[in-house]
Amino acid sequence: MPSVPSKDLQRVPNPHADREYEVDHVVPEFTCMCPMTGQPDFATIRIRYTPDERCVELKSLKLYLWSYRDQGAFHEAVTNQILDDLVRLLAPKRMVVEGDFMVRGGIHTVVEARHP
Amino acid sequence: MPSVPSKDLQRVPNPHADREYEVDHVVPEFTCMCPMTGQPDFATIRIRYTPDERCVELKSLKLYLWSYRDQGAFHEAVTNQILDDLVRLLAPKRMVVEGDFMVRGGIHTVVEARHP
Amino acid sequence: MPSVPSKDLQRVPNPHADREYEVDHVVPEFTCMCPMTGQPDFATIRIRYTPDERCVELKSLKLYLWSYRDQGAFHEAVTNQILDDLVRLLAPKRMVVEGDFMVRGGIHTVVEARHP
Amino acid sequence: MPSVPSKDLQRVPNPHADREYEVDHVVPEFTCMCPMTGQPDFATIRIRYTPDERCVELKSLKLYLWSYRDQGAFHEAVTNQILDDLVRLLAPKRMVVEGDFMVRGGIHTVVEARHP
Amino acid sequence: MPSVPSKDLQRVPNPHADREYEVDHVVPEFTCMCPMTGQPDFATIRIRYTPDERCVELKSLKLYLWSYRDQGAFHEAVTNQILDDLVRLLAPKRMVVEGDFMVRGGIHTVVEARHP
Amino acid sequence: MPSVPSKDLQRVPNPHADREYEVDHVVPEFTCMCPMTGQPDFATIRIRYTPDERCVELKSLKLYLWSYRDQGAFHEAVTNQILDDLVRLLAPKRMVVEGDFMVRGGIHTVVEARHP
Amino acid sequence: MPSVPSKDLQRVPNPHADREYEVDHVVPEFTCMCPMTGQPDFATIRIRYTPDERCVELKSLKLYLWSYRDQGAFHEAVTNQILDDLVRLLAPKRMVVEGDFMVRGGIHTVVEARHP
Amino acid sequence: MPSVPSKDLQRVPNPHADREYEVDHVVPEFTCMCPMTGQPDFATIRIRYTPDERCVELKSLKLYLWSYRDQGAFHEAVTNQILDDLVRLLAPKRMVVEGDFMVRGGIHTVVEARHP
Amino acid sequence: MPSVPSKDLQRVPNPHADREYEVDHVVPEFTCMCPMTGQPDFATIRIRYTPDERCVELKSLKLYLWSYRDQGAFHEAVTNQILDDLVRLLAPKRMVVEGDFMVRGGIHTVVEARHP
Amino acid sequence: MPSVPSKDLQRVPNPHADREYEVDHVVPEFTCMCPMTGQPDFATIRIRYTPDERCVELKSLKLYLWSYRDQGAFHEAVTNQILDDLVRLLAPKRMVVEGDFMVRGGIHTVVEARHP
Repeated sequence: MPSVPSKDLQRVPNPHADREYEVDHVVPEFTCMCPMTGQPDFATIRIRYTPDERCVELKSLKLYLWSYRDQGAFHEAVTNQILDDLVRLLAPKRMVVEGDFMVRGGIHTVVEARHP
Repeated sequence: MPSVPSKDLQRVPNPHADREYEVDHVVPEFTCMCPMTGQPDFATIRIRYTPDERCVELKSLKLYLWSYRDQGAFHEAVTNQILDDLVRLLAPKRMVVEGDFMVRGGIHTVVEARHP
Repeated sequence: MPSVPSKDLQRVPNPHADREYEVDHVVPEFTCMCPMTGQPDFATIRIRYTPDERCVELKSLKLYLWSYRDQGAFHEAVTNQILDDLVRLLAPKRMVVEGDFMVRGGIHTVVEARHP
Repeated sequence: MPSVPSKDLQRVPNPHADREYEVDHVVPEFTCMCPMTGQPDFATIRIRYTPDERCVELKSLKLYLWSYRDQGAFHEAVTNQILDDLVRLLAPKRMVVEGDFMVRGGIHTVVEARHP
Repeated sequence: MPSVPSKDLQRVPNPHADREYEVDHVVPEFTCMCPMTGQPDFATIRIRYTPDERCVELKSLKLYLWSYRDQGAFHEAVTNQILDDLVRLLAPKRMVVEGDFMVRGGIHTVVEARHP
Repeated sequence: MPSVPSKDLQRVPNPHADREYEVDHVVPEFTCMCPMTGQPDFATIRIRYTPDERCVELKSLKLYLWSYRDQGAFHEAVTNQILDDLVRLLAPKRMVVEGDFMVRGGIHTVVEARHP
Repeated sequence: MPSVPSKDLQRVPNPHADREYEVDHVVPEFTCMCPMTGQPDFATIRIRYTPDERCVELKSLKLYLWSYRDQGAFHEAVTNQILDDLVRLLAPKRMVVEGDFMVRGGIHTVVEARHP
Repeated sequence: MPSVPSKDLQRVPNPHADREYEVDHVVPEFTCMCPMTGQPDFATIRIRYTPDERCVELKSLKLYLWSYRDQGAFHEAVTNQILDDLVRLLAPKRMVVEGDFMVRGGIHTVVEARHP
Repeated sequence: MPSVPSKDLQRVPNPHADREYEVDHVVPEFTCMCPMTGQPDFATIRIRYTPDERCVELKSLKLYLWSYRDQGAFHEAVTNQILDDLVRLLAPKRMVVEGDFMVRGGIHTVVEARHP
Repeated sequence: MPSVPSKDLQRVPNPHADREYEVDHVVPEFTCMCPMTGQPDFATIRIRYTPDERCVELKSLKLYLWSYRDQGAFHEAVTNQILDDLVRLLAPKRMVVEGDFMVRGGIHTVVEARHP
């Protein structure tokens, strides 16, 4: 999969790094392109994590997810790529990324990747 | 985040301190201000806890949550702040505070903090 | 809290005392009085238990729960009281009583007490 | 409780006895008679099991459950009876029978019995 | 059960074989024939797995499931057969196949088989 | 269809015969026998009416509906029969009887009959 | 039915009497007594109306509905009584009162009365 | 569209031809073939009608709908064809046939045809 | 009710003034103050209209609804006030404003006002 | 709004032009760009129509809706544009296009345009 400019993802200091807590972002507005057919795919992306020293900055997360709009990306690959990029940015204690993709060929697919 | 006058939160003796049990308060009427944009945020706050010697007094809880109405507060910070204030007041055996915030920029966010 | 005449709660022998199994009664028709304001409260009471030698007799359970109609009772106290009365009557292996109370002051409250 | 002619329950060989798997039958069309009042009761019966050497034959299961139509049966007793009859027939690795009975006297009751 | 031409099921390399993650395919468009009565059965097939070196190719999965259209197949047998065929193809770390069959004779049946 | 002893259906005077209003009874506990196969059928019966001089007495309605338990009755016939019996008893201004029958042969059937 | 002290129901001037609009109050916390058995009944009361010169004062409406707590009242009678009392108080352009009563004897009953 | 052997659809006399009433059959187990791609389509077929002199015989309706299993049929054509065949058989006062087809190419389609 | 600075509400030309069509805005983030108790109220505001020459500008609508945050406003008054302000701004062919307010004193209230 | 190449929308002859019937297409996978901010918008598009001589060809409809992916389009404008293009193509007896757009600035918007 071509590299996505994840350099623009930004982080802010965790305001309560002394306590373990969980953040859950649900983004129903995700679209990318199927690398086989060149047709658009649509998904809901869900990101749950326990921050360590840093949290993701919300506006940059929105822009980062928009950047997939013209990328070709298989279901399994794009879900793992988002996890990779966020783990590199945040070094969270735990993170789960779930991609819930709309029906293709009568098949509804969900991919869920975890760190660590 | 500016300090909230949590001194007004009040407590009552636990009527069954001899037994572990759980209390769950759900408050769908929470609003504060976004410190970045100055615009209102809305959330449902959920407080679950196992009381030790004290329970929270319900009317003071309502007034305490209303006191955020004109406070600037990030999602992660306000959820942890409510947990801090209630733990200081009640010294519960266990407590979870969850803030479920309405969509901003196409992203729905839930923060969940636990004690201990 | 004034004592409720739980002496009228009745029990029947467990027809299958040789096996552990679970009974779950849900009663959406519960009302009592708020001891602070004298106003009615409404709740759904849920009773789950693993019987040992005895089961609760259903008609007497209905009458017992009706007996709270004119009692003043806090949320936490009444839920624990029902658990106390049923444990004394049945000596079950395990029991959970949950009181799910309607909104007061914008706050929805559930209390859940367990034995042992 | 009068004995039900469970002799007509039939079994078939487990087609995949080399692997543990689970079968779940849900039957919303169950009725029997209340032994106290002589009035009809209605329930949904759910049977989940991990077969060992045998599976239940579906048509005979349907007929077996119909055979309760004119039987007097308490909630706790009938649920355990069905479990007893099926365990004797199938000797399953694990089985759960759940009886979910319609409201009587404002009380909704579910009984769940497990083997072993 | 007559053999299904599973030779046409195809696989692709796992793009993230260095990480454990889960894929969940739900296919509500499954039909086969009842071997007893010759009448059609309908089911939703759900396949969850943790890939090792290979993932299933989606289009071939669709064609594979369609190939049951004219096959006689009992509920328990067809669910296990699909699991067998996919395990042979993919050698996944873990896989669950669930067949959720429409009502027959007033009974709704779900079969769930796991590997390993 | 054999005659049902509707003579036991009872009526009470309409307490507000000076005003048109509507009464809606929903009874999810109805069973009769299929005249073709001798097997039980299950349905939810719904009765909506605008009373004129009389209302139906609830306990007798319950007993009346129970009286179908051993009657053979086609879906269309039993729904119209209930309407006939209630119209003869009550002479209502308007009445609708709906029978919502559980799935048979993969087909879910609802019959709705109106007077006048 | 014994008279309810509706004299305490209070009204306020309609703040927009120059425009037709609709107000809808839903009150899930209603209980009265069955005049036949002396047992409690529970209902949700819904009041929809188009005010003319006056609106109902909400706190007095709450107290008025609470006053039925110890009254014996049939389903049809109590629904019509509430409509009568509110019509006398408010002289609305249109009003509907609906009483949605919990299951008794396996029968769920809704009564809906309209003015004019 | 090739002709379907609707000669096997059978009818029975309407047992209450003296009254207008409505029958509603919902069949979630319908499949045919796409004439363009040769791939299976799946739909829920709903048939609502007001019988005149005849009702459809249920078992023959089931067999008739199964007969489409190997037929090529466009969404619009098959829905109208079912209506044509049933109108010819029954001459109903009114009939509506609705075909609710599963997603193809990201598009969910429902076709509804009426007589007269 | 004190006047709200509706002068800031802005409008844009209707891009399809040659056709009647309907726009429906739902805003679940509305709060104002109760003029009796000084306590916050929360509501969902729904605005449906058929534009004539002008549409409401969305960002100014958001700011306008926020301006009620510190206003005292009764349920009936605030709903009609929003309708008045929008009708003055847009002169729409038809408009409905609905205010759906959270439970107060056990009563859930919805107000719906229409123009013309 | 820049013109969309609707020339690629294709039509097929109506297979039952002798009868009025309704077709309903729901497309949850629609995205365009906000002309103000350049940010993506997401919507579900619903097209209901009564064909006259022609039906829309489904694959070309899918491609036509995808063509908005890089177009700037206001909610009101894009919904009306889709209606215009389809009416020009099909000359249907009746058509409704509904655009149901995801939340922006806390406001959920639906636009519904009708022909004629």
